[in-house]
Amino acid sequence: MSSIKKFEKPLGMRDTFPRIYEKMERARQIGRKVFRSRGFDFIETPTLEYYDTVGKASAISDSFLFKLVDSQGNTLVLRPDMTTPITRVATSKLLKEKIPLRLAYFANVFRAQQMEGGRPAEFGQMGVEIIGDKTIFADAEVLITAIQLIKEFGIESFKLTIGHAGVLHDILNDYTDNKDQRETLRNLLVERNYVGFEEAVHEFDLPITKANALLEFINEATNLTSIEDMEKYVRKNDGIEYMKQLSKLLDAYNLTQYVSFDFTLSSHMSYYTGMLFEIFASGSGFPLGNGGRYDGLLHLFGSDAGATGFSIRIDRLLEVLPKEEIEEETICILFDDEDFIKALDLATALREQGARVTVQSKKGLINREAFTKQFSRVVDLSQEETQ
Amino acid sequence: MSSIKKFEKPLGMRDTFPRIYEKMERARQIGRKVFRSRGFDFIETPTLEYYDTVGKASAISDSFLFKLVDSQGNTLVLRPDMTTPITRVATSKLLKEKIPLRLAYFANVFRAQQMEGGRPAEFGQMGVEIIGDKTIFADAEVLITAIQLIKEFGIESFKLTIGHAGVLHDILNDYTDNKDQRETLRNLLVERNYVGFEEAVHEFDLPITKANALLEFINEATNLTSIEDMEKYVRKNDGIEYMKQLSKLLDAYNLTQYVSFDFTLSSHMSYYTGMLFEIFASGSGFPLGNGGRYDGLLHLFGSDAGATGFSIRIDRLLEVLPKEEIEEETICILFDDEDFIKALDLATALREQGARVTVQSKKGLINREAFTKQFSRVVDLSQEETQ
Repeated sequence: MSSIKKFEKPLGMRDTFPRIYEKMERARQIGRKVFRSRGFDFIETPTLEYYDTVGKASAISDSFLFKLVDSQGNTLVLRPDMTTPITRVATSKLLKEKIPLRLAYFANVFRAQQMEGGRPAEFGQMGVEIIGDKTIFADAEVLITAIQLIKEFGIESFKLTIGHAGVLHDILNDYTDNKDQRETLRNLLVERNYVGFEEAVHEFDLPITKANALLEFINEATNLTSIEDMEKYVRKNDGIEYMKQLSKLLDAYNLTQYVSFDFTLSSHMSYYTGMLFEIFASGSGFPLGNGGRYDGLLHLFGSDAGATGFSIRIDRLLEVLPKEEIEEETICILFDDEDFIKALDLATALREQGARVTVQSKKGLINREAFTKQFSRVVDLSQEETQ
Repeated sequence: MSSIKKFEKPLGMRDTFPRIYEKMERARQIGRKVFRSRGFDFIETPTLEYYDTVGKASAISDSFLFKLVDSQGNTLVLRPDMTTPITRVATSKLLKEKIPLRLAYFANVFRAQQMEGGRPAEFGQMGVEIIGDKTIFADAEVLITAIQLIKEFGIESFKLTIGHAGVLHDILNDYTDNKDQRETLRNLLVERNYVGFEEAVHEFDLPITKANALLEFINEATNLTSIEDMEKYVRKNDGIEYMKQLSKLLDAYNLTQYVSFDFTLSSHMSYYTGMLFEIFASGSGFPLGNGGRYDGLLHLFGSDAGATGFSIRIDRLLEVLPKEEIEEETICILFDDEDFIKALDLATALREQGARVTVQSKKGLINREAFTKQFSRVVDLSQEETQ
C-alpha cells in the first residue's frame, strides 16, 4: 500500500464538502417541491446501463462514455444522461398504462474527460420528462415548469432561449447542397460558432442566393424580433406554426418576459426533433440547463408516444444561486469522562430547541481551539459556562 | 439499433419506481435530521475512485469490484463502500484542522454480481463517521446515533449486536496453531457458520484443551450473559475492559434494552480493529447495517487518528420500515385546448392549498380511464364538475 495515490481522485472527479452539499440539498428540496406539486413522480435508475441500450441511444459522443465490461462480457456504461434511461423505463411495459407519464429525477451523470482542469466528469442533474403526450401543451408545461423552478430558486435574471430542431433542419437542408454541409453547419451552431458558420458558408461554394439566404437567416434568427420573420426561409412549415402557437400560450400566461426565440439553437443531443431550449441566468456564460421535445429518442425504443422534458445542471445552478446565509445554531458541548451522560442530556434538550449539537470528549481533542472555532457556541461542562 | 436490448438492465441493477422512491426519500430526510442534529456534516464523494487508492483499501473482495480503465490508463473502481472514500477525504489536508471530524453521507455503493436473481449490484447507504477521536465516547456516540436513527424510523423491535475485533483476533490466535487456522475460523464466523466452525476445530487436530476452549468460547459467546464471562479466554485484555466500560456507558444512558454482546461477531471488512456491531430488526434476517472502529483503515492512509462509524443499507431498511399510508391529494385537471390558461390558474390555486396537481390536455390522452385512476380527484374543465 505504500505506493497508493493516497489522496488523489480520478480525472474530473470532485468531492463535495458540507457547505456546498447543503446548498445542493436546498436546491434539491426546491426541485422536489416544484416537480411534485406539478404532478411529476420521482424515480431512480441504475448508474450502470448496457452500452447497447442506453450508451448508443444517448447521443453523447462515444469518447465521453465511461465503459466497462461485466462478468458476462457485456459492455456497460455509466449513464451519460438521464433522458435515455427514463425513456428505457417509460417504454418498458411497467409504466405504460399511466401514459402520459410525468417523471422527475435527481441524478449524477458521467462524461469522461481527457485532460486535467477541465470539465467535471460527474455532475448532478435535476429534471422532468413528460412521456406520451404529443400536444403543444406538454411542451408548454415543460417550459412553465422550468420557469417556475428557476424563479423558486430565487434567480431573478434569467431567460429561456427557444428554438426548433425541425425548422433548423429544414432550413439547413434547403440551403445547402448535401448532408455533409448541413451537418457541418449544424455542428457549428451547436458550438454557437457564428463566425465559423459564415466562413463555412463561403467555403461551400453554394449558389449565391442560397449562401445569402443562410447568412441572412443567421443574422436575423439571432436577433429575432418576431417568429413571423422566419416564415420566408421555410416552406409551409408546421414548426413555425407550432412556435407561433407556443409563443401565444406563454404570452397568455404572462411569461413573455422570460423567453426569447432563436431558430439557430441546436443541440449536441441529436434526438431532439421539435421545440428545444436552453436556460441562461446572469452570472454564468454556460446554460444552466436545457430541454426540448425528443420524439426521435422514443422511436429508438420502438415507441411513437412522443416525449418532452428538461434538466438543470446542479454545478452550474450553484454558481448563480443568490447568496444566502443560513442561520443555524451549532453548539459544541465539551465534557470530561465523568460528564458524558450529563453532556448527552444537555445535547438532547438543546436539539429539541432546534440547535445542532456536537458532544465531544475533551480527551478526544488534539487542537481544542481549531476544533471549537467551527461552532457558534461552546459549552465546557467542567466550567459550566458559555465561552 | 434494431438489435439493442431495449429494456434490459445490467446484472443486479434495478429501477426505483415512485412509491419506493418516496419511502427512500422519507428515510433520507429522517437520516438528515438525526445526523445533522448530532453535528454530523454531509459530504459527497465521486462515484469513481482510483483502484490503487479506494479499491485496494476498501476490504471488499476484488471479485466484487466494478473496474474500468480511464483514458490515462489508470484503473478505476465504482466505490464499493463509503468508509474508504471518506477516509481518503478526511486524511487529506483539507479537513484536518476540524478533527475530530463528524461526517455523514447518503450514497450508492457498487458490488459486482456473478449471477441473475442474486443480490443488488448497486444499493444505497446512509451513515456517519467520526474521524480523529480514539476515545470510547466516539464509539458510544456512534452506537447512540445508530439507536436514535432506528427509533426515529419508527422501528420498534431491533437490536445492536456488539463484538470486538481485537478480542476475537486474540482468542482465535491463542487457541489455534497458525495464521491459516485463525483465518479459516474467522471467515466461518463472518458467515456465522458455527457448525462449520466446530467441524474445522475438530479437523485442525489441536491440543484438546485448545480445541475445547474454542468450542466452549463459541457456545458461551453466542449466548452471552455477562462480558465478564469472556475474561477467562483472554490475557489481561484491553478489549474486554473496553467493552465493559462501553456497556456501562450504554447502561447509564438507558440503552441496555437495545444492545447485546457477541464476541464471535466478525466482519468481512477486515479493517475493523476494535468494537464492531451489526444492527438487526424484526422482519429481516440480514443486518440492516453495521459499523465499528476502523483505526486500521486510517493507518493505510498514513494516519493514526482513529475512526469509528456505521452505515445502514437502504434496501434492507425499506423492508422493515413500518407501513405508512401517505395522505396526499393528487388532482388531475383535464382541459380542452381553449381552457389551458384556465387549467393552469386552477392548478396554481389548488397547489397553494397543498395538493399535487397535474394539468392534462384531453388531446394528449390515449386511455383516459387508465390515466385518471391514479388520481384522488379528477376535474374535467369542460364539464365543470368533479368526477
